[in-house]
Amino acid sequence: MEDCVFCKIIKGEIPSNKVYEDEEILAFKDIEPAAPIHILVIPKKHISSLIEVKENEIELIGKIYKTINKIAKEQGFAEKGFRVIVNCGEDGGQEVGHLHFHLLAGKKLGEKIIG
Amino acid sequence: MEDCVFCKIIKGEIPSNKVYEDEEILAFKDIEPAAPIHILVIPKKHISSLIEVKENEIELIGKIYKTINKIAKEQGFAEKGFRVIVNCGEDGGQEVGHLHFHLLAGKKLGEKIIG
Repeated sequence: MEDCVFCKIIKGEIPSNKVYEDEEILAFKDIEPAAPIHILVIPKKHISSLIEVKENEIELIGKIYKTINKIAKEQGFAEKGFRVIVNCGEDGGQEVGHLHFHLLAGKKLGEKIIG
Repeated sequence: MEDCVFCKIIKGEIPSNKVYEDEEILAFKDIEPAAPIHILVIPKKHISSLIEVKENEIELIGKIYKTINKIAKEQGFAEKGFRVIVNCGEDGGQEVGHLHFHLLAGKKLGEKIIG
């Protein structure tokens, strides 16, 4: 998608602080971190939001979670814990129209899970 | 797991307000909703947390997300939007030691994604 910020990051047209990359998935640091560790994990394929994930793309979500656990172990916050958030659509507070998983860690995250 | 609250809900030993059920997955309303719609989606298999999901169980996460999208469409909040949250471990604020996905909807959720 030509105007998608995350697609531009994937293509390297916009710089990012990469944490993980393979053929299907990219993980990079959020430029406006909401916690000491705030990583965005995204599929390289442009999928506009969670609700738009098709039957044959569901497998990708498993791969994303496998990546999240891998990152948690590699970065050393697997034991202490972390939070994963996916915002979908307007009510969900989704800000970029490319499916992304927020991975938050590095401090005791509050019980308040919505704003 | 004998002492797991969610396993007891699965077995029907503790009542719940079920939203969806199949052989592998159960979805039910959170008894302390943090939003107008607050559903917990869980695997019936006892997995203590996200970080404990094994290679051969990853597929289950895709199925859970397929279920989340199905619920969103059936309950009529797919278009307006929703949020999915998984808390893992102490820093993540996980309160029950059985993997669960919070599905929140029914109002414009704030941008504040952590407490």
